[in-house]
Amino acid sequence: MSHAASTTTPAQLFDKHHATLEAAVQAIHARGYWTPYPEMPSPKVYGETAQEDGRRAVEATFGQDFELDQPGRSGWMATERSPYGVELGVRYPVCDADALIAAAHAAMPGWQRIGAQGRAGVCLEILERINKRSFEIAHAVMLTTGQGWMMAFQAGGPHAQDRGLEAVAYAYREMKFVPHETVWEKPQGKNPPLKMKKHFEIVGRGVALVIGCGTFPTWNTYPGLFAALATGNPVIVKPHQNAILPAAITVRIAREVLAEAGLDPNLVTLAAFDKREATQALATHPAVKSIDFTGGNSFGQWLISNAKQAQVYAELAGVNNVVIESTDQYKAMLRNLAFTLCLYSGQMCTTTQAILVPAGGIATDQGHKSYDEVCADLAASIDKFLADPAVATAVLGAIQSPDTLARIAEAPEHGRVVLASRKIEHAEFPGAEVRSPVLLACDAADEKAYMEERFGPIAFIVKVADGAAAVALSERIVREHGALTVGIYSTRAEVVDAMTEASWHAGVALSINLTGGVFVNQSAGFSDYHGVGMNPAANASLSDSAFVANRFRVVQRRYHVE
Amino acid sequence: MSHAASTTTPAQLFDKHHATLEAAVQAIHARGYWTPYPEMPSPKVYGETAQEDGRRAVEATFGQDFELDQPGRSGWMATERSPYGVELGVRYPVCDADALIAAAHAAMPGWQRIGAQGRAGVCLEILERINKRSFEIAHAVMLTTGQGWMMAFQAGGPHAQDRGLEAVAYAYREMKFVPHETVWEKPQGKNPPLKMKKHFEIVGRGVALVIGCGTFPTWNTYPGLFAALATGNPVIVKPHQNAILPAAITVRIAREVLAEAGLDPNLVTLAAFDKREATQALATHPAVKSIDFTGGNSFGQWLISNAKQAQVYAELAGVNNVVIESTDQYKAMLRNLAFTLCLYSGQMCTTTQAILVPAGGIATDQGHKSYDEVCADLAASIDKFLADPAVATAVLGAIQSPDTLARIAEAPEHGRVVLASRKIEHAEFPGAEVRSPVLLACDAADEKAYMEERFGPIAFIVKVADGAAAVALSERIVREHGALTVGIYSTRAEVVDAMTEASWHAGVALSINLTGGVFVNQSAGFSDYHGVGMNPAANASLSDSAFVANRFRVVQRRYHVE
Repeated sequence: MSHAASTTTPAQLFDKHHATLEAAVQAIHARGYWTPYPEMPSPKVYGETAQEDGRRAVEATFGQDFELDQPGRSGWMATERSPYGVELGVRYPVCDADALIAAAHAAMPGWQRIGAQGRAGVCLEILERINKRSFEIAHAVMLTTGQGWMMAFQAGGPHAQDRGLEAVAYAYREMKFVPHETVWEKPQGKNPPLKMKKHFEIVGRGVALVIGCGTFPTWNTYPGLFAALATGNPVIVKPHQNAILPAAITVRIAREVLAEAGLDPNLVTLAAFDKREATQALATHPAVKSIDFTGGNSFGQWLISNAKQAQVYAELAGVNNVVIESTDQYKAMLRNLAFTLCLYSGQMCTTTQAILVPAGGIATDQGHKSYDEVCADLAASIDKFLADPAVATAVLGAIQSPDTLARIAEAPEHGRVVLASRKIEHAEFPGAEVRSPVLLACDAADEKAYMEERFGPIAFIVKVADGAAAVALSERIVREHGALTVGIYSTRAEVVDAMTEASWHAGVALSINLTGGVFVNQSAGFSDYHGVGMNPAANASLSDSAFVANRFRVVQRRYHVE
Repeated sequence: MSHAASTTTPAQLFDKHHATLEAAVQAIHARGYWTPYPEMPSPKVYGETAQEDGRRAVEATFGQDFELDQPGRSGWMATERSPYGVELGVRYPVCDADALIAAAHAAMPGWQRIGAQGRAGVCLEILERINKRSFEIAHAVMLTTGQGWMMAFQAGGPHAQDRGLEAVAYAYREMKFVPHETVWEKPQGKNPPLKMKKHFEIVGRGVALVIGCGTFPTWNTYPGLFAALATGNPVIVKPHQNAILPAAITVRIAREVLAEAGLDPNLVTLAAFDKREATQALATHPAVKSIDFTGGNSFGQWLISNAKQAQVYAELAGVNNVVIESTDQYKAMLRNLAFTLCLYSGQMCTTTQAILVPAGGIATDQGHKSYDEVCADLAASIDKFLADPAVATAVLGAIQSPDTLARIAEAPEHGRVVLASRKIEHAEFPGAEVRSPVLLACDAADEKAYMEERFGPIAFIVKVADGAAAVALSERIVREHGALTVGIYSTRAEVVDAMTEASWHAGVALSINLTGGVFVNQSAGFSDYHGVGMNPAANASLSDSAFVANRFRVVQRRYHVE
């Protein structure tokens, strides 16, 4: 994985990646399907030995120091515990936060100087190198998060790279829009005009901190990392203490590219901390001007309340929900929902937690189905989907956190068990903690049960008065508790329209009658806005203009010219 | 001033103003000179009787109820005291904040429905009507703020309209960038592609509050008003209690245009409060999602700390400064600075307060000038400029606030008086409080004297060790106390370069060697960024993408299509 030492300038990197960048900017204009990073782990694309090379590269880090040559190193830490039961023992450098900040500051003027194009070129080179090492990163993501292999490759690799490139495209579009200079010439009637030359310099706001989560250490880290970097800011990446390796590989690649381009590698550093206090001290440092955070409400709200010197972009907990009012594809609907609930054992911020079903049942192409029938049929659909242990373990992955295991165990207290969770043995990883989803039935009045996030494979089928009540309840859940996704199943236009209006009022992305190969918990880069930024689950969106525009400023100077 | 009741739809208004809007969008791309609103108060442009009509329209409001037909009216208030000594006595409706918010909320869906084009069309129609009534608004601005007539016309009229249109152009550019809908078609190898239709709805964040200041009731209000309105939000305008009339006329025009376009006029309402508590209650209302504020640090910081439910765009106090290191146009430099200090008696947020001059004096085209000579020569230049009372009163205007009069009175405590302030009689307005600037000399070590904002015609000539120290001090002042403008006079490229770097680090707009008809305190719409948003004087800029991008969200919905 070593690279030739020949220096490539940022301007050359911009030329190299210009076509991809322009295509990405076109993609965010159109928001149709587009990607430069193939999502299929094909040997033809990634190389015949890529899978094996990636696995070996990760295994070579086990029990070793992961050297990054960062300033202020005071020691090493190894905190990762694999949900698959694999011994990792990778030791990461623990660096003094003040040293990282001082180094980041020192690196900033050179990063400003190369301008929007140079920065975009460097960012795209980093992303290209990351893409080439997708198997290595996928293996690191899988082992640290518990994701199944295919999800780890796709979501941890190309899809995460898409989100990084998308952020660069938004940033580049906004920066390119600012003219580098202009001549301002104001007529003065019969007198000569007033004439001034003006220069407009794009300046980053300051040190950016990106705090990752334990389940999607690249997908949720790359947008903030690349948005901040492209707009002129040095970035300190603070990964979740249980999912450091994917971030550490990413940081190492970024530092290599920066150094090769003649830039200061301390523009991107890794903050490996095992104590929350260390992260808190870093997050409230006066030099830190933006924080991207993905994680729980308690630390997220702490950041928003305490890191007042910084703009905080936060993705927090929510109660995603789906309304089932009626359907003309009952079986396909159940299959779609079953897959949604099983995928990575519901450990996605977009997974449905509450399914709202009228007490009187629903009209379907299979005839009327009572509330209890819907419950039983969804349970059966999940059971059927998980019948093959190889499919089950591939889709479910492993449970990332002991907290989630505890939530699964106590879930039956919160409703009538429609489908119990069971432990599934993993053929390849005997230590893997694999669990099937638990499905609970409860009444709309049991708000304590279903109206707080219960992260993991825990879903409620909530009995509501009727379709209108379901739509109203969905809106209230989103307003009060937040959501990244909602769904509606209905054959009636007026119900879909009402749900659409509710989604506008509450500010949440809506999926309508998903019965095929797209799932409510999937969000495609360059097309789907992930998070709206209007409800308690997230105050920002991946990606829109607001995600990048506030990360830089324009500093002007002007003087008379003849 | 009544308008025909014939309804013009938002779409028709968009067509009517489309060319102007496109030109405005071009202008923010180029940021050269451009305006659709002539700044000269010419009868040929504005009508032969426009000046007289405007004055009469304002005088007709004296002592009367200013009816706006707003909901929740509980009484009337008349709080304005003219710095020119004119009795105003205009009574404004005091409306219940909850009633204004409820009405704003009710008006929002219809405003969302007409889309970005419809909203832009309505905003441009409002601005056109405001422009036609520039004389009326100018008269209201002059009488309430103490501005001289020409400034009241230009800054209160066309220049303020420029800033409003500029905000609409930024908002429109960002909204237009979001596709209304798209088809996402993802290849599936040999299988048929996955195909989805997606719709993207632009939704305003919620009720916007725009809090005006006492000195520029239109120029500092229109950017927030039009940025928020164009992006889909209802706006409550809370003017300074001493400068309500210009805002009230504006709100009345906006409500007329909205009603004529078949929209709910409660999208724009006036909040006339005479108690800070009422504004505080409104600002912290959960429904208020953005606040634009221009004013002092104490209330501004209160808003930032307490109105956490809202995005706050704040322009606060600062210590604007100019470094004089050397010049090859000594007299022109002094004339330029003298005018800057005199214009509206220094009651501009952009007026220079601290002039940093090396202890050893400066090199000039008139030979070496000692520090004391620079002090004396600047004082003489001001004296000369104000020698003609007609010129003096026209440029100085009147002192807006008794607090400023008190600051002028106590200013001599803070330094050696180089030029004393004097009271000047106004030929037309015997009650006008007109004051010439006070110029003080002090040492760089006397930080308590010059390093806090002393709003009004109070300036310090600060003795610094040398040019390098002056540049460093300027940067520190901006970093610690904020500034909207800094200036440099130097014939040496390396000094200008050092000041340029300092302006990037501190985040402040720099004017270099101004000796002609442009002044450091002037900021031209569509070209100069007013405020950088990086130092304590302002957390936002007029206007850039960041000023508009966060005021709306994109809510998507998606479904399978064949």
